[in-house]
Amino acid sequence: MNRLFTLALLPFLCLGQPRPPAVQSPEVHPDRSVTFRLLSPKAAAVQLTGDLVKSPAAMERDTAGVWSITIGPLRPDLYSYRFSVDGVAAIDPSNQTRPATMFAVPGEGPAIYDMRPVPHGELHQRWYMSKSLDTLRRVFVYTPPDYERGARYPVLYLLHGAGSDESSWSESGRVNLILDNLIAEGKLKPLVVVMPYGYAYPPGSPLAGGADAMKRQRAGFNRDLMEDVIPLVQAAYRVQPDRDHRAVAGLSLGGAQALGVGLTHPELFSRVAGLSPALGAVTSAEAGGLDFKALAADAKKVNGEYKLLWVGCGTDDTLFQSVKSFSGMLDASGVKHVWRESDGAHTWLNWRRYLAEVAPQLFPAS
Amino acid sequence: MNRLFTLALLPFLCLGQPRPPAVQSPEVHPDRSVTFRLLSPKAAAVQLTGDLVKSPAAMERDTAGVWSITIGPLRPDLYSYRFSVDGVAAIDPSNQTRPATMFAVPGEGPAIYDMRPVPHGELHQRWYMSKSLDTLRRVFVYTPPDYERGARYPVLYLLHGAGSDESSWSESGRVNLILDNLIAEGKLKPLVVVMPYGYAYPPGSPLAGGADAMKRQRAGFNRDLMEDVIPLVQAAYRVQPDRDHRAVAGLSLGGAQALGVGLTHPELFSRVAGLSPALGAVTSAEAGGLDFKALAADAKKVNGEYKLLWVGCGTDDTLFQSVKSFSGMLDASGVKHVWRESDGAHTWLNWRRYLAEVAPQLFPAS
Repeated sequence: MNRLFTLALLPFLCLGQPRPPAVQSPEVHPDRSVTFRLLSPKAAAVQLTGDLVKSPAAMERDTAGVWSITIGPLRPDLYSYRFSVDGVAAIDPSNQTRPATMFAVPGEGPAIYDMRPVPHGELHQRWYMSKSLDTLRRVFVYTPPDYERGARYPVLYLLHGAGSDESSWSESGRVNLILDNLIAEGKLKPLVVVMPYGYAYPPGSPLAGGADAMKRQRAGFNRDLMEDVIPLVQAAYRVQPDRDHRAVAGLSLGGAQALGVGLTHPELFSRVAGLSPALGAVTSAEAGGLDFKALAADAKKVNGEYKLLWVGCGTDDTLFQSVKSFSGMLDASGVKHVWRESDGAHTWLNWRRYLAEVAPQLFPAS
Repeated sequence: MNRLFTLALLPFLCLGQPRPPAVQSPEVHPDRSVTFRLLSPKAAAVQLTGDLVKSPAAMERDTAGVWSITIGPLRPDLYSYRFSVDGVAAIDPSNQTRPATMFAVPGEGPAIYDMRPVPHGELHQRWYMSKSLDTLRRVFVYTPPDYERGARYPVLYLLHGAGSDESSWSESGRVNLILDNLIAEGKLKPLVVVMPYGYAYPPGSPLAGGADAMKRQRAGFNRDLMEDVIPLVQAAYRVQPDRDHRAVAGLSLGGAQALGVGLTHPELFSRVAGLSPALGAVTSAEAGGLDFKALAADAKKVNGEYKLLWVGCGTDDTLFQSVKSFSGMLDASGVKHVWRESDGAHTWLNWRRYLAEVAPQLFPAS
């Protein structure tokens, strides 16, 4: 986002003098309603789209060519949006936040994902050669405050959703700020979080297509995680190397991947969480048809192996019924788990909230 | 960029099946010409903008509503662009690279900024409380391959341009890949690179405006760098703490900041580089009027203090004459320095190239 901002303003900023935006957008009013504005005199139709509207919302043009819409009041949270200008996606050039598609509606106090004056951990980007996939890949790693001091930490492997990448949990999910705050509040054991890239074969690459694409994606992802990422992390970061201190969680596609790899590899993981999991990504015939029901059949074994199994979804999520059925199947089989039914849909509004809830359940402060 | 991509494709990707883009864009042809396409049936006018065109270039609409333009052939490099749709900036929804505003025109072999199968360093994001500015800030830090092994490294403070932020040298500049490659080639001493945020007061904040804004920006930046960032880096990373192993460099606004702080603080820096420096950001009356000519008057002292002083600019850069005059002034005063005159303008095409050239001059492999 910042690059677009940079290119547009470069001529005006060369001497360090920022140009004031032509219009104010978004404007968060005291009653928590929000006005969005876009100067686009030539457009025939402009809409507001994203997390905060269920369907694209038409904006109105004034005589100067400024399109605007006011929505809300909104619940205090961190929202994402964009504009659709004659059907083409556009970012808001007036949004001064980074990235420019987000804005916060403040509540009474700082939110769990807000930057607070507490000790901060560090976010690492590391490149590695995946022997499993024969390609260079990038992984994001969060280390907690005071990591330099030398202790060993439990580790959470945290997976992103479809169409996204290894940067999304930090950029959109604010994972580091949420964990910094939970650790400062004494609710969460300091831990290392590893965020790998979830596609074995990136969208657009030849191997991402074809009839058995989903099966190849699933097998490739599992292999990269188990044979490359976990060994890399154990060599390069001070993590506790046993299953008791290793968890896997994810959202949407990553939620299905977490449940898939977590529940089939009890020798590696003791704690598993699926946030709005898109279960079809591992259970569908195209993906190789992982059979969770068969896994759940031996409830006593499963209950003995896992210290936490967490599944959550929002009631407005199109995946809600399938995730609720999954939880129901676990119940019917006698598999202990936490079922979290929230409001909201398939958006970061829920995933930030879920992470703040589930992390202290995975590794509670002792 | 990825977020927009994610939001647009989410319904199609939930089960891990990427939707093929509606049109192919950009298409790099074998002769290194490039075709850009955008499906936008309702737009009245679409232009191609960015690094690779001197001024916005009109695109042509076909009967299906696909706008296109072919440019080049281009020199092998990594280019940035965007579209202007009826005057509103838009990213290319068909661009599969990350970030979606970039594409590479490949040359005969891998470029210096390409990901190669060599040992890779790590990129860190660290949050710190700036006591000077009474605010939480973020700094990016590159550590070289094998940093875990325990040596101490020389350190380069590397500053971004106006309107940008602490992420731009890694995201647009590919700093880590360039340094990984130079180290692997045996041209560059392994080093730590620190990329702080260059605005004491971010654009849009109340303190970024007013008559003495540039002066406050300059003083605040210098204080944050010297009193907060350097002590933080020396406490948290294994860097050599003496001036002989400390350099400062930057591009555009950051180039002026680097020359400004570097040449007034010989007790801190022994190597200084200005890449397309926007000198007015420190020399103008509004910025407090730093007088480089007075500094250069004692050439013998300056020549004794600095192991390298590097200044470069592209002949198509609007800043070219002012930077060339600065070099001429240094020559006239007898101050030894490297003057690099290149083709190209005020874009990342030059800054990636300059970094690859200047880094091994700052800290040559021994």
